[in-house]
Amino acid sequence: MTIADSTKTSLSKTINVDLGERSYPIHIGSGQIFHANIGQYVLGKKALIVTNETIAPLYLDTLLGQLSNKQVDQVILKDGEQFKTLDHLNLILTQLIEKQHDRKTTLIALGGGVVGDMTGFAAACYQRGVAFIQIPTTLLAQVDSSVGGKTAVNHALGKNMIGAFHQPQAVIIDTHTLTTLPDREFRAGMAEVIKYGLIADYDFFQWLELNIESLLRRDKQALAYAIEQSCINKAKIVSADETEQGIRAILNLGHTFGHAIETFQQYTGLFHGEAVAVGIVMAAELSRLAGAVSQQDVDRTRALLSAFSLPIAPPEMMRADDFMRLMVRDKKVLDGQLRLVLLGRLGSAVVSADFRLHWLEEVLAKACQP
Amino acid sequence: MTIADSTKTSLSKTINVDLGERSYPIHIGSGQIFHANIGQYVLGKKALIVTNETIAPLYLDTLLGQLSNKQVDQVILKDGEQFKTLDHLNLILTQLIEKQHDRKTTLIALGGGVVGDMTGFAAACYQRGVAFIQIPTTLLAQVDSSVGGKTAVNHALGKNMIGAFHQPQAVIIDTHTLTTLPDREFRAGMAEVIKYGLIADYDFFQWLELNIESLLRRDKQALAYAIEQSCINKAKIVSADETEQGIRAILNLGHTFGHAIETFQQYTGLFHGEAVAVGIVMAAELSRLAGAVSQQDVDRTRALLSAFSLPIAPPEMMRADDFMRLMVRDKKVLDGQLRLVLLGRLGSAVVSADFRLHWLEEVLAKACQP
Repeated sequence: MTIADSTKTSLSKTINVDLGERSYPIHIGSGQIFHANIGQYVLGKKALIVTNETIAPLYLDTLLGQLSNKQVDQVILKDGEQFKTLDHLNLILTQLIEKQHDRKTTLIALGGGVVGDMTGFAAACYQRGVAFIQIPTTLLAQVDSSVGGKTAVNHALGKNMIGAFHQPQAVIIDTHTLTTLPDREFRAGMAEVIKYGLIADYDFFQWLELNIESLLRRDKQALAYAIEQSCINKAKIVSADETEQGIRAILNLGHTFGHAIETFQQYTGLFHGEAVAVGIVMAAELSRLAGAVSQQDVDRTRALLSAFSLPIAPPEMMRADDFMRLMVRDKKVLDGQLRLVLLGRLGSAVVSADFRLHWLEEVLAKACQP
Repeated sequence: MTIADSTKTSLSKTINVDLGERSYPIHIGSGQIFHANIGQYVLGKKALIVTNETIAPLYLDTLLGQLSNKQVDQVILKDGEQFKTLDHLNLILTQLIEKQHDRKTTLIALGGGVVGDMTGFAAACYQRGVAFIQIPTTLLAQVDSSVGGKTAVNHALGKNMIGAFHQPQAVIIDTHTLTTLPDREFRAGMAEVIKYGLIADYDFFQWLELNIESLLRRDKQALAYAIEQSCINKAKIVSADETEQGIRAILNLGHTFGHAIETFQQYTGLFHGEAVAVGIVMAAELSRLAGAVSQQDVDRTRALLSAFSLPIAPPEMMRADDFMRLMVRDKKVLDGQLRLVLLGRLGSAVVSADFRLHWLEEVLAKACQP
């Protein structure tokens, strides 16, 4: 992973994700969609932009203007995690075939995590693999889902159960898009930002504690710094373990609990980042029972999440049994053994199957209504 | 690619597909399902056998007997290319989630090309990739589709449009299963056998011409030899070009024409091998117009296919326009340029975009009813 100031636009930075022949740049800056030469990453004559009904009116025309020398087709999906399904994936694939896109086509994901995950998976399996570019427009997608090549759709019985590792050609992060992001989505993204501080970067965690105010008013410099640090941490971890054979799993802090919540609510309740916030608190509690972190560490974690008005307790309808039933489907389960990401201290995490079941039961009992 | 006589069963052979860390063996012999230690390739505690309504009554119990020390679940699909869809793929994925299979699970494809392609693609995308084993039970699957890691499902608008490159742990070919194979399916498989002679192995082509009788009565030794030579040729080509950046495309001799026929008939008319037989004749005719092979070469090709009662002309309903419309969706099209596999001579093929359109028009005009 290398970092360089771009010579093209004074306020943009480039972070490189080092994956051998699958390496790619993350460009971060304000106005990237307007200025960046996105066309350089479209290698053939055709491209397909995938976006959604919310983002299309805001940025689609601008992006089309950047690609006026190509045949650019488009698919506009409905907005929402509940549409991240095989059926909606098929809309993208059908468009590709109908418009006669071949193996040299490039897909472009313009939107949040759902658009990025689906576009990436469509690129992974169309004609057994074509290129794609990520242009994430939500904070969550910019700091997390657009980087690292995890693509997927949901199954009615479990989140992200159907997918592929497929790295993009480039990630183009335009921080200007955050000016149009609804407040709830912005706060949901902050859960993943805070995650990086917890799992890998205590300095960053402290910086976040000191910069709550400026982040809440979306100060451009503060936001750009938070996004950069998040991407730097993610790029490091992904470069070390592309297909999650080990260390990469720490990126899933809080996600096993969070996915259970999302599946329970059939993707129509809490946003992904909100569910992760709840899960992070539960993982921190479990880490405390394991003796790895103190009550004060848990309180600081809860306080930072709360400062961004993120939920820190499961939905009232959910019982401990619901968690247990849904968590055994987690992708980190191996040979029937549930593995969870636990904090070793603030700023460090491990994947562990080495916890007592009664700790988990205690966490669930405390978190859920009886 | 290496070949070794197995020390375990006197009549079995092993061919190795050399792909670095993705290398795997092809075991060929009579009674493999009964004798081979298939369990050695099931690394975790669970496996899922995917088969179809035709094969299940014949071999499922035997295979289950080989795996009695594992938790083995099963999915029995409908039999037919028209069921090779995303919807039917979902049946496999649902079963995996419901039975709580994790990333260490192994899928086992027991059946023909459709079962193998779907099971392989399910393995490629379940939890972003799990292991699978191919146990092909049709001649076509044994000599072609089970080897090389191409997995896919069809789209209503085009064959094998959605898929992945995902190599199996092993391919187990039990030639005994051919004793229960219907005659039409056996003959369809011979089209792919003949293909290897045409594209890569003139000696084998001559051997086939001399052994029509024994193959038609399914002489065990002749069949075993034909399967071995086919697998050896396929393993060589796949090892040289795993993801079809170049030479591997010659394996698609006749397939661009053939896929157009299958798509036109919505996968309910000619079998894949039959459609390929028609396509091979059309590709040979085009090669003759290009001056690469003689009329006598085309006649020998047509005669060998006809000896196995394979069709050598398109369905009566199809017009030249239908071919043109469907062929532009072929996966070998690059930047709008149709590329076809042509014979350089008997025993050698090339992928070429360097042909005159009027040659193609002449071939289509001659093959199709006016």
